[in-house]
Amino acid sequence: MERIVDLIRSKRDGEEVSLADFEKLINGYTLEEISDAQMGAFLMAGVCNGFNDSEAASITAAMLRCGEQIDLSALDKARVDCYSTGGVGDKIPLIAAPIAAAAGVAVPMIVERGTGHIIGSLGKLQSVPGFRTALEVADFADLVTEFGLAFAEQGNSLAPADKRLYELRNDTATVESLALIAASAMSKKLAEDLSGLVVDVKVSRGSLLSGRTEARRLAQLIISIGRKLDVKVQALLTDIDQPLGYTVGNALEIMEVSQTLQGEGPEDVSALANEVAARMIFLADTSISMDGAREKAQAAIQNGSALQTLASVIAAQGGDPEALTNFEKLPLTKGAYPITSPRDGYVSKINAADIGRAAVLLGAGDSGTGTVADPAVGVVLEAKVGQAVLNGTRLCSLYYNDSTNLEEAQQLVEDAFRISTSEPEPRDLVLDLIQG
Amino acid sequence: MERIVDLIRSKRDGEEVSLADFEKLINGYTLEEISDAQMGAFLMAGVCNGFNDSEAASITAAMLRCGEQIDLSALDKARVDCYSTGGVGDKIPLIAAPIAAAAGVAVPMIVERGTGHIIGSLGKLQSVPGFRTALEVADFADLVTEFGLAFAEQGNSLAPADKRLYELRNDTATVESLALIAASAMSKKLAEDLSGLVVDVKVSRGSLLSGRTEARRLAQLIISIGRKLDVKVQALLTDIDQPLGYTVGNALEIMEVSQTLQGEGPEDVSALANEVAARMIFLADTSISMDGAREKAQAAIQNGSALQTLASVIAAQGGDPEALTNFEKLPLTKGAYPITSPRDGYVSKINAADIGRAAVLLGAGDSGTGTVADPAVGVVLEAKVGQAVLNGTRLCSLYYNDSTNLEEAQQLVEDAFRISTSEPEPRDLVLDLIQG
Repeated sequence: MERIVDLIRSKRDGEEVSLADFEKLINGYTLEEISDAQMGAFLMAGVCNGFNDSEAASITAAMLRCGEQIDLSALDKARVDCYSTGGVGDKIPLIAAPIAAAAGVAVPMIVERGTGHIIGSLGKLQSVPGFRTALEVADFADLVTEFGLAFAEQGNSLAPADKRLYELRNDTATVESLALIAASAMSKKLAEDLSGLVVDVKVSRGSLLSGRTEARRLAQLIISIGRKLDVKVQALLTDIDQPLGYTVGNALEIMEVSQTLQGEGPEDVSALANEVAARMIFLADTSISMDGAREKAQAAIQNGSALQTLASVIAAQGGDPEALTNFEKLPLTKGAYPITSPRDGYVSKINAADIGRAAVLLGAGDSGTGTVADPAVGVVLEAKVGQAVLNGTRLCSLYYNDSTNLEEAQQLVEDAFRISTSEPEPRDLVLDLIQG
Repeated sequence: MERIVDLIRSKRDGEEVSLADFEKLINGYTLEEISDAQMGAFLMAGVCNGFNDSEAASITAAMLRCGEQIDLSALDKARVDCYSTGGVGDKIPLIAAPIAAAAGVAVPMIVERGTGHIIGSLGKLQSVPGFRTALEVADFADLVTEFGLAFAEQGNSLAPADKRLYELRNDTATVESLALIAASAMSKKLAEDLSGLVVDVKVSRGSLLSGRTEARRLAQLIISIGRKLDVKVQALLTDIDQPLGYTVGNALEIMEVSQTLQGEGPEDVSALANEVAARMIFLADTSISMDGAREKAQAAIQNGSALQTLASVIAAQGGDPEALTNFEKLPLTKGAYPITSPRDGYVSKINAADIGRAAVLLGAGDSGTGTVADPAVGVVLEAKVGQAVLNGTRLCSLYYNDSTNLEEAQQLVEDAFRISTSEPEPRDLVLDLIQG
């Protein structure tokens, strides 16, 4: 395929690739007319030479258009979703979505598996007995129309190039490109027929997007893609140096989702979920103020409508809504192993990645390669950064069914906690807001 | 394969790749443990970031060692071959090899197919009726021992990664890397168990602005690889702005090989073949002078021993040696189409690439993709650059069997000739000599 070699060569030589050429490339790859070798070489040329903002938007558009797109044009509501780059204990989207939906926003949410030590929203929702996420596009649109909210897995029809590209990038050391990261995320989100999107870019000293500068660039790139493809985007940069909330696992996180929707969630989770939901409400109706949007979000918790919305959607998608209020209905573990503080002091650090790795070692991983996730297992923190502890105070518990990796997980978690003699400086959870 | 991804990443990030890692990469690719996508991405990272001289030698060594190598250690002679980067009408290796062999050098020559508009030595030799080049490694070594010369095709055992890599590079726009070009050539040549190698790097003004600079860099790189892998290399930079000699085609070039070995070849072919052969003789025995080596080369022509050596080798490899002196034994065409000068003047330019393309259009191509080469067809020049011609003087003839592409070939050839009113400046054939 002579033409494709020319295209690879032009990217190799640092030229800008047009939308039409990206469409040729992505469509050809989806149809298997372009080989993995050619795509691998093209992506590497892009990673080495960089993709500019315009190319990032073109890749997104090409990936979006090569698949099916949800049509919500019949709705007379704004469609706003939220997207998180992913963090340990990050159940925010599952809380912000029902809040925003209860406040009148349509939220058509495609949920995904996790990767590595990050557990995805898909696995968390599937821990609710009976819950089905494999929806036809038309049924998904109907649910959004009826409840203002629905959760669907990506399947093979939405942005179909994305899955194969993701595996290819993983194999070819071409993951670390902000343009490709942004295009992958945005192509799936834009298939939801959105008018607005709130993005939560996690900033951590230990993850893929380690630096705050990188995080800011990713946020700006996503906003730029949104602008070019007619979606209003606001981005928050938020801290993920310790896990969000207290629970890390599938069913364990659903419990915390429920508690937060009942107004009894951890401070960090409640604050961030409310902020994300408020921004979704604001993007849906910019005639109200951000303070007005925050009040609407709080009201949806206080009057129970957010919890009720989630319960209704769970029921409509085949799940047991009672699981939200009666945790006995969720899968539970046989064993719980406590980790205690080795000395008096303050919790000064909890390495989020190591807590995530421990949860995955216990079987919570839902990345879909190899083993099936155990929905019950995970880690429940009992202390967070800043808390004073005594020698022997419980720091967290490991919930497990299979003890094979328990010792390794225990070691990871013990090392993840740092106990210092002095009280650590408090850190902001929301580090920055970036608007289009 | 986690480790390979790390290796790709390190090349992507501009780090130097070690010999051990290149061996892992090339062996893994040969064993199909490393995918085309991974190799494509790796090569692109290398093309974007460059491979240094040390990496070029390591790639060569890895490609060489992943296959079988000829063992000529029992020979008490120096083994010296020549390698040309390839040009239109370039039959020099087929002349220099028997000259050097007749002068006492062992020449174990692996011959290859052509690419694009370049016809390879393999196709030329195969135009001799009966000639077989598919030799076992042991038989090849025996022939070299007996005659001081043998010709073998690459097969699947010598540098086996090279063929797949070449196709992959063609598909992924990773051909244009001097290190990969040098490694591909040298890995095959070094499989011949050489002590010395004369390299002829073709320089064309017509192709790239940086033609001569690039050619010099390639020559220096090949010398550097030779030094690291214990092979003495000398490189000539030679002009290929017009075709070498008068014939372009398979059997047609064999005729010119024979004429030159009989002391009746074209001036340029005779001069260059003698120079290359003399350098081979010199590398085999540096105790003699280059002038002494040139005299030995001339003597091998004058006393008929070079022609006799080639005839013996042809006979030993199943071919009809009479074809060298009775051209009726070679395949001949049914038709010949003359091209004449449109006006009086001097031939000031003959575009070599267009003459090559015309020969391939007539069916002379032996690149092995698609059609089988017609050994008889090609172009025979009747005037060279600098020659005075009159309106109607014959410039060349197209020898064809199938007239399908005749008109297109004719057009190409007519445009390839430039007839000027003033006599062009004479150009040197050998532009430079680069020694280790």
